[in-house]
Amino acid sequence: MPTQPTAGLTNGVHHTEIRVRFGDTDPYGIVYFVSYFRYCHRAIEEFLRACGLPPEETFKNVSEGFGLPIVEAWGRFRRPSIYGDLLRIETRIEEVRAKAILFRFEFYPETGRELLAEGAATLVAIGPDWKARDLPKRIKEALKKNK
Amino acid sequence: MPTQPTAGLTNGVHHTEIRVRFGDTDPYGIVYFVSYFRYCHRAIEEFLRACGLPPEETFKNVSEGFGLPIVEAWGRFRRPSIYGDLLRIETRIEEVRAKAILFRFEFYPETGRELLAEGAATLVAIGPDWKARDLPKRIKEALKKNK
Amino acid sequence: MPTQPTAGLTNGVHHTEIRVRFGDTDPYGIVYFVSYFRYCHRAIEEFLRACGLPPEETFKNVSEGFGLPIVEAWGRFRRPSIYGDLLRIETRIEEVRAKAILFRFEFYPETGRELLAEGAATLVAIGPDWKARDLPKRIKEALKKNK
Amino acid sequence: MPTQPTAGLTNGVHHTEIRVRFGDTDPYGIVYFVSYFRYCHRAIEEFLRACGLPPEETFKNVSEGFGLPIVEAWGRFRRPSIYGDLLRIETRIEEVRAKAILFRFEFYPETGRELLAEGAATLVAIGPDWKARDLPKRIKEALKKNK
Repeated sequence: MPTQPTAGLTNGVHHTEIRVRFGDTDPYGIVYFVSYFRYCHRAIEEFLRACGLPPEETFKNVSEGFGLPIVEAWGRFRRPSIYGDLLRIETRIEEVRAKAILFRFEFYPETGRELLAEGAATLVAIGPDWKARDLPKRIKEALKKNK
Repeated sequence: MPTQPTAGLTNGVHHTEIRVRFGDTDPYGIVYFVSYFRYCHRAIEEFLRACGLPPEETFKNVSEGFGLPIVEAWGRFRRPSIYGDLLRIETRIEEVRAKAILFRFEFYPETGRELLAEGAATLVAIGPDWKARDLPKRIKEALKKNK
Repeated sequence: MPTQPTAGLTNGVHHTEIRVRFGDTDPYGIVYFVSYFRYCHRAIEEFLRACGLPPEETFKNVSEGFGLPIVEAWGRFRRPSIYGDLLRIETRIEEVRAKAILFRFEFYPETGRELLAEGAATLVAIGPDWKARDLPKRIKEALKKNK
Repeated sequence: MPTQPTAGLTNGVHHTEIRVRFGDTDPYGIVYFVSYFRYCHRAIEEFLRACGLPPEETFKNVSEGFGLPIVEAWGRFRRPSIYGDLLRIETRIEEVRAKAILFRFEFYPETGRELLAEGAATLVAIGPDWKARDLPKRIKEALKKNK
């Protein structure tokens, strides 16, 4: 049975809605840069779920003997957002390599096309020994179907 | 060899210094009430360490088959603190029961005796089945020595 | 025009759905007690919004000269939740006093009536001098309509 | 009176000690990548303080009319750290530009020279209109003295 992309993931772009919460800002009321990286992780979680890959069995899968840690992350923060704002993250897979997945993120206001922030994250498949290994075939296929 | 209380724990009171960090406030620059609970956990960690009980072997100990989760917590927030403030937490054990430990916390400015906030937390010893069990004797003794 | 309760708030009970996120657990994969307090704040935010009170103008309102800080909070954590779980918070107003609002929270699995955790929070209206003052009438009325 | 670098900052390298705390890991007990960015911000705070620049007057200074937000950040996470680990961050200024400061971070175990993680952050001086402006001269000089 093929993986059915659910609402949220269309033509390889997943839309995640984020509300800026009380603890997400800096002391001056502006979203703390660290919060954007937390939002990016949430966007990856929702992207995986929409591909039919439950994150709680994907970031670490004991029975199949692999993990999928984030080994690199980057963000550029262009315009300030504040408490209460509704943001929309557009998440794309930039590349699926033999052992790695590269995600790209763009943050926009709920309505509007002004780029507020952007980011990237690289996940690498590892075995129980923490050494890089090939991505499980079923994960690769589920992701490529939504690339 | 008896457990030697290290600096920080005197007459049953442990002093933990906390710097209010960039991500600890609400959008108006005041310490977010959630951060006080995080500070309390840190105070428990430092209290245990000062009793000779490394927290990473005490909150969950696989070989001895017990865990020590927080099952109840309370806090009252009296006066606002802001980004950059240095706080001093005074941590005491209120009671060591057969299956539980009750901690009390008081927050003061680095220098001064004005009570900024106070709190309490109850930890219960559980077995691998998540049912309450007696506290391991060595933990009980290390704590009572510092009560 | 009367405040229209939106979906989520029925007969004085607001239902907030929470997904346990990657950074919300302790090192053993169980929801960290501090995260429950963060979830409670989110439930208050959604409760206020459903009453027609945007939280970003309600926790602090410069033009009307009041703030609404949390001065006391309590939680009891009965059963563990883990990464990926979907929780449902039932939020009620326990009491609207002249200067304070008392909220109650109950955490359940997405489907099911097993109480996982419960909590309470007290918010007090203050003026620019941080002294308690009467709740603005419009806030009191919006809340009482949904009690 | 010249700015006196305090302990911690030697030959342009600041050493910040970080204890991995209970809420800093992912559900599998490994430091969450987001926590490294939080640690980096703490390292910047301590670096500034050691240069005689109190962070609470440096990230935003109302009277001098400038702010210093982080506009870009990057991290590579090489080896896992776990709850309770003591890490040492080595923080350097890579460059002081007319309007920007570039920081570099390296994470090591408390004792040892094995690179666990590395990162970078760019801070830009802005005016009240959020447009880039020259760094205040006193900040530039305090930092260059410690480059």
